[in-house]
Amino acid sequence: MSKIKLGMVGGGKGSFIGEVHRMAARLDDRYELLAGALSSDVNTAKESALSLNLDKKRSYSSFDTMAEVEAALEDGIEAVAIVTPNHLHAQVAEAFLNNGIHVICDKPLTSSLADAEGLASIVKDTGLVFAVTYNYSGYPMVRQAREMIQNGDLGELRVIQIEYAQGWLATDIEKTGHKQALWRTNPAKAGIGGAIGDIGTHAFHLSEFVTGLQVKDLLADLDSMVSGRELDDNANILMKYTNGMKGMLWVSQIATGKENGLKIRVFGTKAGIEWSQENPNFLEFSPLGESLRTLSRGGPSIGSLAGDATRIPSGHPEGFIEGFANIYSDTADLILAHRSNSKTNSLVPTINDGIRGMQFIETAVKSSTSGGVWLSLGS
Amino acid sequence: MSKIKLGMVGGGKGSFIGEVHRMAARLDDRYELLAGALSSDVNTAKESALSLNLDKKRSYSSFDTMAEVEAALEDGIEAVAIVTPNHLHAQVAEAFLNNGIHVICDKPLTSSLADAEGLASIVKDTGLVFAVTYNYSGYPMVRQAREMIQNGDLGELRVIQIEYAQGWLATDIEKTGHKQALWRTNPAKAGIGGAIGDIGTHAFHLSEFVTGLQVKDLLADLDSMVSGRELDDNANILMKYTNGMKGMLWVSQIATGKENGLKIRVFGTKAGIEWSQENPNFLEFSPLGESLRTLSRGGPSIGSLAGDATRIPSGHPEGFIEGFANIYSDTADLILAHRSNSKTNSLVPTINDGIRGMQFIETAVKSSTSGGVWLSLGS
Amino acid sequence: MSKIKLGMVGGGKGSFIGEVHRMAARLDDRYELLAGALSSDVNTAKESALSLNLDKKRSYSSFDTMAEVEAALEDGIEAVAIVTPNHLHAQVAEAFLNNGIHVICDKPLTSSLADAEGLASIVKDTGLVFAVTYNYSGYPMVRQAREMIQNGDLGELRVIQIEYAQGWLATDIEKTGHKQALWRTNPAKAGIGGAIGDIGTHAFHLSEFVTGLQVKDLLADLDSMVSGRELDDNANILMKYTNGMKGMLWVSQIATGKENGLKIRVFGTKAGIEWSQENPNFLEFSPLGESLRTLSRGGPSIGSLAGDATRIPSGHPEGFIEGFANIYSDTADLILAHRSNSKTNSLVPTINDGIRGMQFIETAVKSSTSGGVWLSLGS
Amino acid sequence: MSKIKLGMVGGGKGSFIGEVHRMAARLDDRYELLAGALSSDVNTAKESALSLNLDKKRSYSSFDTMAEVEAALEDGIEAVAIVTPNHLHAQVAEAFLNNGIHVICDKPLTSSLADAEGLASIVKDTGLVFAVTYNYSGYPMVRQAREMIQNGDLGELRVIQIEYAQGWLATDIEKTGHKQALWRTNPAKAGIGGAIGDIGTHAFHLSEFVTGLQVKDLLADLDSMVSGRELDDNANILMKYTNGMKGMLWVSQIATGKENGLKIRVFGTKAGIEWSQENPNFLEFSPLGESLRTLSRGGPSIGSLAGDATRIPSGHPEGFIEGFANIYSDTADLILAHRSNSKTNSLVPTINDGIRGMQFIETAVKSSTSGGVWLSLGS
Repeated sequence: MSKIKLGMVGGGKGSFIGEVHRMAARLDDRYELLAGALSSDVNTAKESALSLNLDKKRSYSSFDTMAEVEAALEDGIEAVAIVTPNHLHAQVAEAFLNNGIHVICDKPLTSSLADAEGLASIVKDTGLVFAVTYNYSGYPMVRQAREMIQNGDLGELRVIQIEYAQGWLATDIEKTGHKQALWRTNPAKAGIGGAIGDIGTHAFHLSEFVTGLQVKDLLADLDSMVSGRELDDNANILMKYTNGMKGMLWVSQIATGKENGLKIRVFGTKAGIEWSQENPNFLEFSPLGESLRTLSRGGPSIGSLAGDATRIPSGHPEGFIEGFANIYSDTADLILAHRSNSKTNSLVPTINDGIRGMQFIETAVKSSTSGGVWLSLGS
Repeated sequence: MSKIKLGMVGGGKGSFIGEVHRMAARLDDRYELLAGALSSDVNTAKESALSLNLDKKRSYSSFDTMAEVEAALEDGIEAVAIVTPNHLHAQVAEAFLNNGIHVICDKPLTSSLADAEGLASIVKDTGLVFAVTYNYSGYPMVRQAREMIQNGDLGELRVIQIEYAQGWLATDIEKTGHKQALWRTNPAKAGIGGAIGDIGTHAFHLSEFVTGLQVKDLLADLDSMVSGRELDDNANILMKYTNGMKGMLWVSQIATGKENGLKIRVFGTKAGIEWSQENPNFLEFSPLGESLRTLSRGGPSIGSLAGDATRIPSGHPEGFIEGFANIYSDTADLILAHRSNSKTNSLVPTINDGIRGMQFIETAVKSSTSGGVWLSLGS
Repeated sequence: MSKIKLGMVGGGKGSFIGEVHRMAARLDDRYELLAGALSSDVNTAKESALSLNLDKKRSYSSFDTMAEVEAALEDGIEAVAIVTPNHLHAQVAEAFLNNGIHVICDKPLTSSLADAEGLASIVKDTGLVFAVTYNYSGYPMVRQAREMIQNGDLGELRVIQIEYAQGWLATDIEKTGHKQALWRTNPAKAGIGGAIGDIGTHAFHLSEFVTGLQVKDLLADLDSMVSGRELDDNANILMKYTNGMKGMLWVSQIATGKENGLKIRVFGTKAGIEWSQENPNFLEFSPLGESLRTLSRGGPSIGSLAGDATRIPSGHPEGFIEGFANIYSDTADLILAHRSNSKTNSLVPTINDGIRGMQFIETAVKSSTSGGVWLSLGS
Repeated sequence: MSKIKLGMVGGGKGSFIGEVHRMAARLDDRYELLAGALSSDVNTAKESALSLNLDKKRSYSSFDTMAEVEAALEDGIEAVAIVTPNHLHAQVAEAFLNNGIHVICDKPLTSSLADAEGLASIVKDTGLVFAVTYNYSGYPMVRQAREMIQNGDLGELRVIQIEYAQGWLATDIEKTGHKQALWRTNPAKAGIGGAIGDIGTHAFHLSEFVTGLQVKDLLADLDSMVSGRELDDNANILMKYTNGMKGMLWVSQIATGKENGLKIRVFGTKAGIEWSQENPNFLEFSPLGESLRTLSRGGPSIGSLAGDATRIPSGHPEGFIEGFANIYSDTADLILAHRSNSKTNSLVPTINDGIRGMQFIETAVKSSTSGGVWLSLGS
């Protein structure tokens, strides 16, 4: 099976997530990176392309040009990874979709719900593959949780507790010129959501991915705790799900000492589960009236969803890159299915998941600015 | 120093908390239990008194009689521990206060705020010692957290996350005749709060004890997840504190697999801390820009509040009973000070803490039944 | 049932273990401390007795006098707790045994095997209760481990790994006058074993208590890592047990950062278990081909040995004092059985366990001074 | 910089470690896999090559032919990864070295010390790069431990405790035809060491890598606990290091419930450290008289060795593959230095480390078969 020819927009030197996408694409050897518009800065773009061994001709200074030229090449790229700041996602994605190129897009989908909906209609029209890298759904034990809930191992779901806490924005490092902080705290680039956009959308998606339920209503209390910051850096959110399940979501980037503390806990009538991103190879499972069990990736009692997403035996920890690579590998399956005009079931987050993320951001901001009131998602 | 003569109301056979109070009173040898009205059931009262080696004459079938008779005895009790269901706290306490006997009362203070306020005025009039056993404030590392916050080690406080999750009411065990469940799920005995009264008040108190701040406003979403249950068994609560700190509080008794999961996390401008009741000898401390430190009870860098509440060296775990005993020992200090008509600083939860707990319950219920709206505490 | 009248030798001001014994004796209210020879220093003895509310007449300056006088009193003590440095255990115990008084003796039993054997013959002759406070066998989850192994849940035992690591002697604090360090590093008071006597004997006993097997042969490599120290402060030991099980034991008091790190792991043909003293309410259980389970004191799947040793529900941590108190409570059962001339099964460590501990010390020292050779225990 | 052309011997379908090497080689994009003799079974070799997109002509059925042909190709491989069972390492390595091709060889180096020494002289003669994949030394926090010890943060080292415990050979799965178990328990393929060869050598290497000290003497007690197994599956080993440090090493593949439990603890006069492979992103650090600190990969207080081996920020876990990839990336540096005839410092395990591993195996077996006696390493 020939490898998928991949391009990338954004992700030049100094980018964190660009290199993550590249490692994820490499790990299972199903992609080859052949083209890029790696930076809006021409020199950075060139240097970055050079260090990645890209053919000079396929290092572009404009994503529009790249989309057109690559589409015309015989061995042009089939898919593009978009890893720019949020405000560019929509226009970049459209350029490639309109040239028949599949898209793998970082989250949140866009910088506004309106943009997202516009993009969705193009995706629908083109019939191309569109993956949103809610990468935490790629972790094997997250998928194990999903499978167990689907199987009824937890009974009827009642309560969900999710949190995603970081501490790296506890001070105003954006004022020091910190590149990652700079655009994430700038509404012009990030959109109307700060922490809730950057990491809250991950948690939101995870809650729906794992439980198979949807958030119906939410109530949010957002803050910009760091003086002078325009976007939220802490969010306390209550949620109601379609089946009556109740939830709380805490999102913070000013939780001093927290690194990348994404944690999900779900409690049903028959059992509870808990998973933490920072110790991702394990899933705690508490059946009613029995001792706590620690399920281990690759170990006993693991279902096929997690099994299919596992590369190495239990006890040999897989991490963030491996989880991310599962999204890439699953997307490769979708692209191959598209090549052969066939269908395949997939766990890859779609444009619809992207839209729900945008609804989440906009609803949360609206609830909070209204003083903390219950709103239906997307209302 | 002679021991404090102690009586007990409630806490007969089958009681959990009665025996805890007795062990707590014994541990430091500052009390002797001499009298009791241990059960509303006459036989249970007798048997219980016998098994505790009480003088038969001082085993009472009525707390009123007990209060009067003991007050008249030359060596009558100086203090009484009240460990009945909530609805009896007020009248029992009043009987003893009116007879000049100090009170150690379990939580929540009463079954209604009105009762609590009535009781408070009696306490004030008598000038007697009144302790409410919010026992989690007795743990040394909780006190260490308080001291560090008072010292400014966390800087300005921004965010608090508290949870108190149990799973023992995940099914309707009250229908099986389970004694503990029976009264706790019965509004006539427990008052208007279920989980928020039974354990939520602990968490609420802890948040104010540790931070030195007060909850100003709250918004609550309460549920009775188990079919047919009248009182809440799960509560999702948002809070605003006096200094602008924001908080979330999750209280549950249907979180399958959770045992006694009380956890508190506080984040300030300079550091964050985390403490878990189920591993109580440690306090995690994350100063900005430094590695996580695990402070250990009895170990390096421990202040005087925790030090004074510590009996044995680090590595030799102290537990729930020891923490509870600290409340008893500190109350003994108050009683001795009262004997000598002197004053002493104290960490013992007071009648005012009890009233705040009742305000918390009533405000939470009101917010929730109003559809989840922000209310000022006590409004 | 009347309480057991208790005396104490040693354990005056500044003692760690004396106060532990007293709290352990108090917790379940089955003893009353009435007499003591609490210190070899007359003033310390007096002050200590005063602070414990002992009758002045029953505060003795000599244990010999105490034994004789108490034996003659109508309400004299029935049992004595011996908490002196090791070299005095034998003579103190003999004095009380010869006066018909039961003995609860701290470990190691004596400062030499010869002393221990002499003492054993007196115990045998008198028929009195003699308990050695290998207190770690009092923890409920240690007993759970024992019961599971007896029940065959682990299958045939193959491997045991035990360690007991502390760091408090990592520097020569005995030269600073540190009281606890001073006698423990002094052969005249501690005997020929340093760390292996002070804490190694605990680990050794625990290994036999939990597995029901006996050490047959051992090979030891002992060191005095701190310059100028006469007794061992680190010991690496290999062991062979009666059934062919192999073991390793690491004992250290110079393991910087370790507090009281006693840990035991046993692996059989059907399952493995792990227990750590610093987190004592849990027992990890790994059945072959199944997920890890965490058994919780007071929780599901707990047997009667642990159940009988449990005071409060799961999630409410019990600690070191509670475990120690189980030894006291079980010894109370033995004393009551002796009163009524009946028999009772018991888990209390006996004089024979004490002797095995002394054999362990002497064999380990001999093996090490011989350059590290295999020796039969007691050879 | 052009990528390094890589071949592989062994590692066909069903191999665990072959795919690990390939993922490790891919992750940082510094190698391209172009040739292979992937299996001794012709069909497996073909299928495996096909699934890896190898040019058919460069899928060899014999490693000898591969070495010769590739050496003659203009774009032939520069390096070969050897991932066969142990007994083939030496001859395969020699074939490639003799054809001027660098070698990356799995561990243990060979199946006998004699073979290892023969190989070493060839390596020396050819001057080629020879890396042994003691991959655990690639973990960032292992390197952090090494750097801290080199910097003197632990003071003088006194005690090391290492363990490497697995449970997958707790039953005789080799009799079920389990491929991994089959050759590892067969002396003809594995050599004279079972668990000590397969995983003990990793632990042994790690101890020397982290501490910078060498094992001088050891004493071993090896067992084949599973009936009918020819090679050791459990080993208890005592060690003495060059500076007087004492150590214990436990190696087991029958520790039911253990997955890949490699753990190292080192204690010095100034501090102690602890690292566990199953939670590899953290290093516990206990300075004398201070609270425990948890150093986090990518977090505060991390030195350059760990920093250079880190791809993504703290809180985003890196795992086994990433650690393995660090060995590959460092080896790429060596190969580039060789291309340019320059020198570079390197942490990559060398042929000498391989030889020490073989000395460890042979000395341990000899010690054990002699009844457990102290032997000098390599004696």
